Amino acid sequence: MQNSALVASVTPRKVVVFGGDGFLGSHFVDALAAQGHEITVFGHSRPNGSGNLVHLEGCFRRVVGEFSDEKAVAAALKGQDVAADFILTSTPVSSWEEPLRTTETDLGPTVRFFELCVEQGVRKVLFSSSGGSLYGPHHGPTDENTLTRPFNPHGIVKLCCEHFLSYFRVKSGLASDCYRIGNAYGPRQPLDRTQGVVGAWIGCILAGQPLEVYGDESTLRDYVSALDAAQLMTSSLADLDSTDTYNLGTGHGTSILELLEIFKEVSDRPFEYHVHPRRPLDNPSAILLSGKLLERFPGFTFRDLRQGIRESFDWAKKRM
Amino acid sequence: MQNSALVASVTPRKVVVFGGDGFLGSHFVDALAAQGHEITVFGHSRPNGSGNLVHLEGCFRRVVGEFSDEKAVAAALKGQDVAADFILTSTPVSSWEEPLRTTETDLGPTVRFFELCVEQGVRKVLFSSSGGSLYGPHHGPTDENTLTRPFNPHGIVKLCCEHFLSYFRVKSGLASDCYRIGNAYGPRQPLDRTQGVVGAWIGCILAGQPLEVYGDESTLRDYVSALDAAQLMTSSLADLDSTDTYNLGTGHGTSILELLEIFKEVSDRPFEYHVHPRRPLDNPSAILLSGKLLERFPGFTFRDLRQGIRESFDWAKKRM
Repeated sequence: MQNSALVASVTPRKVVVFGGDGFLGSHFVDALAAQGHEITVFGHSRPNGSGNLVHLEGCFRRVVGEFSDEKAVAAALKGQDVAADFILTSTPVSSWEEPLRTTETDLGPTVRFFELCVEQGVRKVLFSSSGGSLYGPHHGPTDENTLTRPFNPHGIVKLCCEHFLSYFRVKSGLASDCYRIGNAYGPRQPLDRTQGVVGAWIGCILAGQPLEVYGDESTLRDYVSALDAAQLMTSSLADLDSTDTYNLGTGHGTSILELLEIFKEVSDRPFEYHVHPRRPLDNPSAILLSGKLLERFPGFTFRDLRQGIRESFDWAKKRM
Repeated sequence: MQNSALVASVTPRKVVVFGGDGFLGSHFVDALAAQGHEITVFGHSRPNGSGNLVHLEGCFRRVVGEFSDEKAVAAALKGQDVAADFILTSTPVSSWEEPLRTTETDLGPTVRFFELCVEQGVRKVLFSSSGGSLYGPHHGPTDENTLTRPFNPHGIVKLCCEHFLSYFRVKSGLASDCYRIGNAYGPRQPLDRTQGVVGAWIGCILAGQPLEVYGDESTLRDYVSALDAAQLMTSSLADLDSTDTYNLGTGHGTSILELLEIFKEVSDRPFEYHVHPRRPLDNPSAILLSGKLLERFPGFTFRDLRQGIRESFDWAKKRM
């Protein structure tokens, strides 16, 4: 893996990853393990977890608990250098129907989580934010200086969490890096959810169901491999005092119809699909210029989308 | 009053003003009454209200209730064209100590309020936002295209409410105007609160207490007369379908030490004061370029700050 060589040797850190056995979180745990960090994974009380970290059993500490259980969260945070938050309770689709629930289940507990980080002496928070819904109705690429105008409750609350991290930095000195991640895809992506079109489409094809395609050639998204995203996010571990916000995408927009063409090429099974207009809940485009983050990884190359989707298919077939 | 002549004749609207007997809300009710609108005031269950609207008794409908009482709020909204929200539960100072309370008491109920507006068929919301804490650590003037980076929970939640209004516009067609108001001052400003330095200082002087001055010549604020602010906000009533966000300030920064000098000139009572460094919870500067709003009021002139402070003193002396 050519990009691995780009990571200089780093000081080992104690890192707790909330949602670390989920899709993106587990790739981050992989990236941490490759760098030799001391890892704790905090997650739901599923027996044996999601299975995403089976290959690392014994290489990390597992704490089973609910994100809303303050005692369990505080115990997991104690003594850690860094807390990474990959907890996901709402999605752009679910929050569109239940905006109040999004404020109650996402915002309040996350702000309380940041407070607990301060109380437990954690030095830095790594926050997985939303590149897809945070900038709002912009056409064309965005960078971190683009005006944020979210209108989807998922993106609204993610941005609000970022602002609360600014508060905790000023008030309590808690460092934090926020990553505004594009449409992450790859192995371990849930196949049965409304968020994550690549995983959802693979799930449909393998189940013999038609794809539901929302949008047209102007509906542009920045598809980024979860493996690439995870590796780039380890940049936060180099300096525990630095604080910043980073776009995390390829900077390249792929239309939903182009994605459909790639699926036709890559899939070895025929499938039907229905094309619908773009949904009101979706931004017209979401393309993330990530120069600020990539400055820290000279020579980094993103995984090719076709190749990445092939790998996702292969993983899903084995899984099912 | 020269500015009154600037208001063209307007279609009478049915307007319910939440917090309409408070400081800024009552000035807005005055401005509505001068234009002949049909007014409902929703407020706390204080016997006879705050006294701010005594001069208008009989000219408006009063609904007594708590903002958290959905039935009372829904009843007040029924049949209204416009709902104006001047409800204030947190301030920059209070929210700094209780960030979670700010999300629970301000954000949730306000989002629910917007939902109720949709359910009751209200056409437009007028939202009093925060010009002082919403832009964050900018030096120099800001306009509506300036990147919003709040770090005080009060400003964070106000901005989040603005974004939820974008959501309700896209999802349900609810129109809304957000006003990012500078440091409003004037008659009826509470004399015993931590928010509103002009009122607080007048209260201290009349009570024989020293002024606590936080900041220096670089701590710049945009002091805007509440009467001017209220009049400018009536611009929302002209078009019930338009939606926008407006800075509402003079565009002129006054340092906290200049304000102190004005108080020395204007006060007929001697007073002591203590100068402290700027508090971490305060922005270095907050100056609001309001050209977009003022375009709608050609020739508008803001009240002179000295004159406005004199009027505030006169009101406070009568009140005490």
